[in-house]
Order: sequence, then structure tokens, then C-alpha cells
Amino acid sequence: MPHIELKEGLPGIVGLLAFSPDTAQPLLALAEVLLRGPNSLTSAEREIIAAHVSYRNDCAFCQLSHSAAAAAHLGGKHDLVSHAKVNPEAAEISDKLKALLNIAGKVQKSGKQVTPEDVARARQHGATDKEIHDTVLIAAAFCMYNRYVDGLATTQPLDEAFYLERGKQVARDGYVAVSKTYLPAEPVAR
Amino acid sequence: MPHIELKEGLPGIVGLLAFSPDTAQPLLALAEVLLRGPNSLTSAEREIIAAHVSYRNDCAFCQLSHSAAAAAHLGGKHDLVSHAKVNPEAAEISDKLKALLNIAGKVQKSGKQVTPEDVARARQHGATDKEIHDTVLIAAAFCMYNRYVDGLATTQPLDEAFYLERGKQVARDGYVAVSKTYLPAEPVAR
Repeated sequence: MPHIELKEGLPGIVGLLAFSPDTAQPLLALAEVLLRGPNSLTSAEREIIAAHVSYRNDCAFCQLSHSAAAAAHLGGKHDLVSHAKVNPEAAEISDKLKALLNIAGKVQKSGKQVTPEDVARARQHGATDKEIHDTVLIAAAFCMYNRYVDGLATTQPLDEAFYLERGKQVARDGYVAVSKTYLPAEPVAR
Repeated sequence: MPHIELKEGLPGIVGLLAFSPDTAQPLLALAEVLLRGPNSLTSAEREIIAAHVSYRNDCAFCQLSHSAAAAAHLGGKHDLVSHAKVNPEAAEISDKLKALLNIAGKVQKSGKQVTPEDVARARQHGATDKEIHDTVLIAAAFCMYNRYVDGLATTQPLDEAFYLERGKQVARDGYVAVSKTYLPAEPVAR
């Protein structure tokens, strides 16, 4: 049971965004630019970073949502996404993405764990300053979203099928657009 | 030395916000609403929550910045803020704020650590749903800001005096207004 009173039928972060529209705005804007803004990393790659961090934080809603979004961007490659999320070094992904996921995994524990060697490895495989910056910020942001969702004990369906449709919608329309189905048209003070 | 090339003279998160104006916008908007938006918790109380989480994450820049802002809101009570940040249960603060800092400390480790008993304790001392929600989100957000600042190895002055003036400015004008001194007038794509 959630720690605060949330509207029924809005699981995970969705109920929290509906509860608090004034914080929902920047939270959605941040996800939108990080995961879907103009970038040399694809949205699929960035969603895999989000899913990996959420998996490491054991946040069911976030890891299943962002796995579904990543797979939707890749035309349904659920197994690939699942491998990359759970064991990046052994997955069929680029060496650059492996190196970035290594950095993201360090950030999940603490920002201080990222070493110059971790960064050098990413650069060696072609990562730019912006890609390294965005990887650290995506990983840090999901340490926030995961704690938000779990810290208020939101309801989180465990059936992967639940996430498939939403993953496709998000991959097609984005986080801000999809939020219009559950947020008031004009943000109001709580 | 920072892991990516940042403008000199812009320590901590400031250099990162200047590096990446398109993510700076939602990050600043989130800090503004969480720490300064309309709320039954004072800005000083919310800055203390931010400082406590940043202290627990051992992020020098964030804990000193937000301690300075909290003290500025309280007319210079640096010792009070320092006690509340390091050892909330023994500090001269309200029982409600102690209970909220207990929740924030749990969120710093993992959202899953927050128990119904932690929440019941906060309610017993008068905390509302919105105050509990905002405490969890402030704590979660600083797990992001701290990782962002440390994960890219930004320069972080350790001299408290460095933070005093900025703390006063932020307490007076807010995060978005102060950012205009180092961000471009119109956000541009990187």
C-alpha cells in the first residue's frame, strides 16, 4: 500500500506525477530531454542505461517501463534489452555502450566510484564529453526516479505485459505527451 | 580534475549546468519548486533535508551549498543547521522535522528502506501527505544532484566561506534567478 493517498489505477511514478503536478513538470521535462532529446546516443541506448540503473536499484516499475521503451525503439528486441540490462558486458551491444553502462553502474552506487580509467575506457570506444555527461546524468536521475517510486511504496505491477503498451506509446510520443492522459491540462498549485 | 571539459571558475554543479543548458532547465526548475515553491515546510527545513542527504552522500559541494542556504534562511544559524545535518535526532529542531529527516536518511540508502512505521512517526508529529511526498522527492533528487556532481568529478571548494555568499543569494533570489549569471539567456541545443 502506498505511504500516501494516491489515485487508484495509476501505478508507479504515474500516481506520484498526478499527485504533484508542480513537480511532475520538471521531472517529465528532464526524462524527455535525457532520453529523447537530440543526441548522438540513440533513445534505445539511453533507455537501456535507465533500465540498467533501475534494475540495479531493484525498482520493478522503472526497470520494466524503460526496458519496454528500449525494446519498442528496437522494434521488439526484448531479449537483447534484457541481457544488456542484467549483464551488459556479455550482451550483444557496442563496446561504447558497454563502457557507458559500466560508468552508469558505478554512479548507481556513488558518483565517487567513477574513475578516470572508467572514463578513458569509454573515450577509447569513441564516447564524447556529451555522451559521458549524459550517461552520468541519466544514471543519477534514475537513482532519483527509483527512490521516488519505491520510497512512497507505489503499486508496481510485476507482469511484463502490463508495460508493453505503455513502452510503445512512450517510444512513439514521449513522456510529456503521454502524461497528458493523467495530468491536468494546466498545472495547478497543490 | 573533472572527467569532461568544463569552463574554469564554475565549481560543482554550476559548471555542469553551464555545460548542458538543455538539462539545466529542468534541473533548476525542480530545485526551485522543491526547495522554494509554496509549501507548509519552510525553505529552511527543505534545505536542511537537502543538506542532510548530501552529507550522507559525502558530496562536499552540495552539502556546503545547501547548509549555507538553510542558514541564510534562518538569519545565520550555522551551528543549528550543521547539527541538524549531521545528527538530526540530537538537534534543536521540531519532532516533525526529525521524523522527516529520518525518512530522508532511509531514501538516501534506498527507497525500499522507508517503512510504514517511519511514515507513521512523521504523521504522529503532524506531517501531511504532501510533506511526506516532498521529503521523499527532495531526498531522491539530492541522490541525483550528488551523483551528478561527484560522478563527473567536478571541482569542489572545501572552504565554507566560499559558499556563504552564494547561499545568501540563493536564499534571496532562488536557483533559477541565480543561474542567469552563468547560463546563456536563451537555452541552446548543445
